[in-house]
Amino acid sequence: MAVNLYDSAYALEKAIRESDEYLHLKRMYDEVNADPAAKSMFDQFRQIQMNLQQKQMMGQNISEQEVQQAQASVVQVQQNEKIFRLMEAEQRMSMIINEINQVVMKPLSEMYGGM
Amino acid sequence: MAVNLYDSAYALEKAIRESDEYLHLKRMYDEVNADPAAKSMFDQFRQIQMNLQQKQMMGQNISEQEVQQAQASVVQVQQNEKIFRLMEAEQRMSMIINEINQVVMKPLSEMYGGM
Ligand SMILES: [Ca+2]
Ligand SMILES: [Ca+2]
Repeated sequence: MAVNLYDSAYALEKAIRESDEYLHLKRMYDEVNADPAAKSMFDQFRQIQMNLQQKQMMGQNISEQEVQQAQASVVQVQQNEKIFRLMEAEQRMSMIINEINQVVMKPLSEMYGGM
Repeated sequence: MAVNLYDSAYALEKAIRESDEYLHLKRMYDEVNADPAAKSMFDQFRQIQMNLQQKQMMGQNISEQEVQQAQASVVQVQQNEKIFRLMEAEQRMSMIINEINQVVMKPLSEMYGGM
């Protein structure tokens, strides 16, 4: 990769790492990880989500029971304040990453998009 | 999004737009688009690829005939020199985008990865 591309990519990496949103997300993540009950609840939630996504991607059937289990786990984690705040912080970070991607990928989306 | 993030994202966008690899890709893309026969062959190829990907994502069956049609279209487009060079340029650009993404997303992969 050319020097200029590397430099620009690293400058953006640094800007993300120093952004309020990333620092906030990191704090929320550390808080959940420092609380064994919250961490175990959150890990379980992630596992359920990932299993469902994998089944969806592979076109496997998802049972009524699995849907209910997933919904129950969402309700459960949202009642934990630390996890709720972590998920809020993740959503904000994810919106920022989407915005960044739209800016950075513009040369390619312009080329392939309806030009 | 904070000013610093915007500025860094736009600087990277500009570096991509001015990179040798992007300029080369753009030339190869324009050459295919300026050649009606190549363009129509390439559009058809893309259509076949997208259909297959969509079916795969939705877990639908892909028939033996569809697999053969897809393989034949790959062989056909690779025999067209302009398309072949465009696909080479796309692969190089795609590798660079992957490298950029790995750099830029490091703050997040570090946080969620095995730390
Ligand atoms: Ca800020
Ligand atoms: Ca260069």
